[in-house]
Amino acid sequence: MRRVAAVLVHYPVLDREGSIVTSAITNLDLHDIARSAHTYGLSDFFVVRPVAAQRTLAERVCEHWTRGSGGRRIPDRTPAMQIIRVVPTLDDALAALGEGVELWTTSARASGPLLGFADARERLAAAGPAVALAFGTGWGLAEQVYARASARLEPIQSPRADGYNHLSVRAAAAISFDRLLTPR
Amino acid sequence: MRRVAAVLVHYPVLDREGSIVTSAITNLDLHDIARSAHTYGLSDFFVVRPVAAQRTLAERVCEHWTRGSGGRRIPDRTPAMQIIRVVPTLDDALAALGEGVELWTTSARASGPLLGFADARERLAAAGPAVALAFGTGWGLAEQVYARASARLEPIQSPRADGYNHLSVRAAAAISFDRLLTPR
Repeated sequence: MRRVAAVLVHYPVLDREGSIVTSAITNLDLHDIARSAHTYGLSDFFVVRPVAAQRTLAERVCEHWTRGSGGRRIPDRTPAMQIIRVVPTLDDALAALGEGVELWTTSARASGPLLGFADARERLAAAGPAVALAFGTGWGLAEQVYARASARLEPIQSPRADGYNHLSVRAAAAISFDRLLTPR
Repeated sequence: MRRVAAVLVHYPVLDREGSIVTSAITNLDLHDIARSAHTYGLSDFFVVRPVAAQRTLAERVCEHWTRGSGGRRIPDRTPAMQIIRVVPTLDDALAALGEGVELWTTSARASGPLLGFADARERLAAAGPAVALAFGTGWGLAEQVYARASARLEPIQSPRADGYNHLSVRAAAAISFDRLLTPR
């Protein structure tokens, strides 16, 4: 089984006009994705934030839940929050995952060649370098992130006839971990 | 395909000491579960709140996203928020789902006979009355809710050797909808 880490990208991401922006941190993104990632055995949850002041904020949230009063109140939360690594750039996250790391991107939209979940599960079960599974905040990852990725996962399809698909990044991450990492 | 609705229960639920309490509303529960439920084709998302003041709060949040400025800013959010029904009791939710409605409960803990996800998928694909899929807030649904249920879904198992499992209700709902309602 390969090492798998989640990466939540706040830059570069799109806003609703399609411009490249830095999105704001949502407190529950940290909690929910850390809890889901740790439950499914991911090694790390990188939070990519170029703005130093917002990294400090994210680190304070983590500290509250690992060494502070939050962790004493809800001890189950601590092991999940301990896998959060707040880093300035996507490159920092990839560097921390070692030689040959593969960047796999996610998206609500299909574009170009896609890696299906069944194939992705097989690839993760085989030997190989670490995989960084990147999720975009805002209106999704910027094209430059897809351009450098080793693979783009197929979107989570809605079973609806009208194709409505508006999952939160927290829900999309949880479903992706479940599809990729639950033994079948 | 049977009608499936999600029910988020704020009473009766457990606190961390195991006492029966009414939990507070979390704004992102409404958004995330509505977005996941609508994406997977659920008909309704009932929010059970015995406290009238908190029902008013939840209704204002919904109004902001359906008829207010939130909906104009993010139009994709509107169809999801429109399936939210804020009701005082679980009985109100069940009554709205018609004759013969089945209450299916969820839990992070296994106890008594469990309905597996594969069997549950088959039951939903067949003809039958509506199914209300109940999720607990706080430390989970009170025993009296399990006692009246037609079925208790198997827990979402962690693949970890230590069995760590601390998913948010938002993540558990998303994963449950994906497992139950994605065609295979």
